[in-house]
Amino acid sequence: MNLNKHFLELEDSYLFSTIAKKAAAHTQANPDAKVIRLGIGDVTRPLAPASIAAMTKAVAEMGEAATFRGYGPEAGYPFLREAVQNYYSGKGVKLSADEIFIGDGAKSDVGNILDLFDKNCNVIIPDPVYPAYLDANVMAGRPVYYIAGDEGNGFLPMPDAIGAQGINADIIYICSPNNPTGSVYTREQLQAWVDYALKAEAVILFDAAYECFITDKNVPTSIFEIEGARGCAIEFGTFSKFAGFTGVRCGYTIVPPELEFGQFNLQKMWARRQATKFNGTCYIVQRGAEAVLTPEGMAECAANVEYYMNNAKIIAKTMDELGIWYVGGENAPYIWLKCPDGMTSWEFFDKVLSEANVVGTPGSGFGAKGEGYFRLSAFNSIENVQEAMKRLKEVL
Amino acid sequence: MNLNKHFLELEDSYLFSTIAKKAAAHTQANPDAKVIRLGIGDVTRPLAPASIAAMTKAVAEMGEAATFRGYGPEAGYPFLREAVQNYYSGKGVKLSADEIFIGDGAKSDVGNILDLFDKNCNVIIPDPVYPAYLDANVMAGRPVYYIAGDEGNGFLPMPDAIGAQGINADIIYICSPNNPTGSVYTREQLQAWVDYALKAEAVILFDAAYECFITDKNVPTSIFEIEGARGCAIEFGTFSKFAGFTGVRCGYTIVPPELEFGQFNLQKMWARRQATKFNGTCYIVQRGAEAVLTPEGMAECAANVEYYMNNAKIIAKTMDELGIWYVGGENAPYIWLKCPDGMTSWEFFDKVLSEANVVGTPGSGFGAKGEGYFRLSAFNSIENVQEAMKRLKEVL
Repeated sequence: MNLNKHFLELEDSYLFSTIAKKAAAHTQANPDAKVIRLGIGDVTRPLAPASIAAMTKAVAEMGEAATFRGYGPEAGYPFLREAVQNYYSGKGVKLSADEIFIGDGAKSDVGNILDLFDKNCNVIIPDPVYPAYLDANVMAGRPVYYIAGDEGNGFLPMPDAIGAQGINADIIYICSPNNPTGSVYTREQLQAWVDYALKAEAVILFDAAYECFITDKNVPTSIFEIEGARGCAIEFGTFSKFAGFTGVRCGYTIVPPELEFGQFNLQKMWARRQATKFNGTCYIVQRGAEAVLTPEGMAECAANVEYYMNNAKIIAKTMDELGIWYVGGENAPYIWLKCPDGMTSWEFFDKVLSEANVVGTPGSGFGAKGEGYFRLSAFNSIENVQEAMKRLKEVL
Repeated sequence: MNLNKHFLELEDSYLFSTIAKKAAAHTQANPDAKVIRLGIGDVTRPLAPASIAAMTKAVAEMGEAATFRGYGPEAGYPFLREAVQNYYSGKGVKLSADEIFIGDGAKSDVGNILDLFDKNCNVIIPDPVYPAYLDANVMAGRPVYYIAGDEGNGFLPMPDAIGAQGINADIIYICSPNNPTGSVYTREQLQAWVDYALKAEAVILFDAAYECFITDKNVPTSIFEIEGARGCAIEFGTFSKFAGFTGVRCGYTIVPPELEFGQFNLQKMWARRQATKFNGTCYIVQRGAEAVLTPEGMAECAANVEYYMNNAKIIAKTMDELGIWYVGGENAPYIWLKCPDGMTSWEFFDKVLSEANVVGTPGSGFGAKGEGYFRLSAFNSIENVQEAMKRLKEVL
């Protein structure tokens, strides 16, 4: 029996389980402490009424013979593909509905897209970044090269960081707004990435999961706002953050037909991959997602986004007052701060937990370059965020 | 750019698109013809009231702050893992909840499980069979060996068909009740497969998608009814057929901890694979699936199964009357018949479409050994099935 030996190369990730254990031990030792969690990247506000109404209706349809639906198209129902098309059109990005593939969330698609690539592709991954990019490639045995984020580049590494390593890039991950740093690439920076990828014949896997938090008009919300991107980029979108669908599961992947390399057409390959190893997203969920993209749904979801971004502002203002260096919080729900007094990420975690009863995420959990940094998330109630910031001001 | 060259080895499958084209052309040429479709393997009856009620409630929960849920556990909520555990317990199969992984359907899991295996594993695939098994392995570049079904073995190939080829099996696909043939392995036959796999250090991927249609008490509904199976088998289950969830998307994969080969533990590997490239199944859907497994839901779904199985009996009886050889129809919703007069699968398709306005599925679409055979499905209304059989009797 030959098993996939690359699983042995995966490093065990104890980040969130260690956080949970430490928080639980703290609560046990201090039963009266009111712990506030700003650690996890999960939404907290209930779904928009428009999506609730649409899903309630869709459930009822499934109970009646006349409106029951069995297998749907693997790539998604036309009604949702067209709704996403219109959403992009509203942002000035022209797509055709058949280059939009509906899936059960960006995490699945970001991992499964790798089926299309040879195992010897060179993979470029920013450090720090969302850990699933790395693990999915380690599992497949691909060589991974890091490009470092730091204070100097505002945690936004540029193509020169690849050139310096003397390798040919095949797959380049870009996550903007970034998880965990909340930093965003400008139009000019993304243009430089697209130009580089076109020249290198590389494919950019652009994770746009947090695009709804962008408020700055000069920051693109889609890689397809950039000239040339249709020849080098795949974009992953999700309803998780904008519509609070983290537990509902719906996303989409945009694969333009221009992504052609010799005999290989990536759009056709993705269509075939999904038709073979996926069977479409829940009909009820697709109706919920469609409703999110109506004017009514958009307004309701935008109000939630604004709520979180107001929290982000409160956190950022507190960091300003404390004189703590940070990025993010302006176009993203995350604030990535430098631990004061040269503390390591876990030292700072322990300090704010024990002294302020606040849980955050140690930056070192997102890569070696995250050491010495710390992530605070805006996903909580305004009351909790205000109280947490009050406590941090007392302690730091 | 190195892309996955194995995609070029995939054969284009035009089976269902060709069927659709031919049926459309026929309808256009004969606008008054009432075409009856017994071709596709999709359910037609609406969801059970118990699952509708549970999903309606779950949707409402997602709209309220107090009951909203974000990310769920990647492997599924304990409430559903335990419900599946109880379902198996009711069949006399003892499982622990943590070896049951909830997913978005058997097709995804059957494909994605291959991430755990080396690309040089020898894969054993019955012919004819559900085409996704083959395609998922061709994509990964694995060597595939067929074991032939025929009239002699009742389309139930046994391990001797591997031995005859002089290869070491690593992965063995078994689908029982079988899609497309409707044939089922007996307890003794499955014991022979388990004994073989244990000796060969192979893993059986047991597709139990159609287990709910088994009526014969001597036919196992789970590979885990067989002694030794926990050391060599992974089982895939689904709510698609029993509960009509083809458009709702929920299934489960059972990976016992005993599946250990040297340093590799398959349960741990699958947990890691899913935590990296999957983010759990929709909460609403999981509540619907939980309701299916209550006594009320079970009774409602059993009534649907009985309805389809009554259709299968009507089809089987017609074949008996016509003196046509077939398997299936007793413990499965499919009847796999031998085309009369030496016709090829497509010749027979054309004949029944043009003369009886009935659509079935040409057996050759499921593998080379399917040539000369034809699949009829019991998924339709009893009135349509009765009418279709009346027409077949007139024509054949």
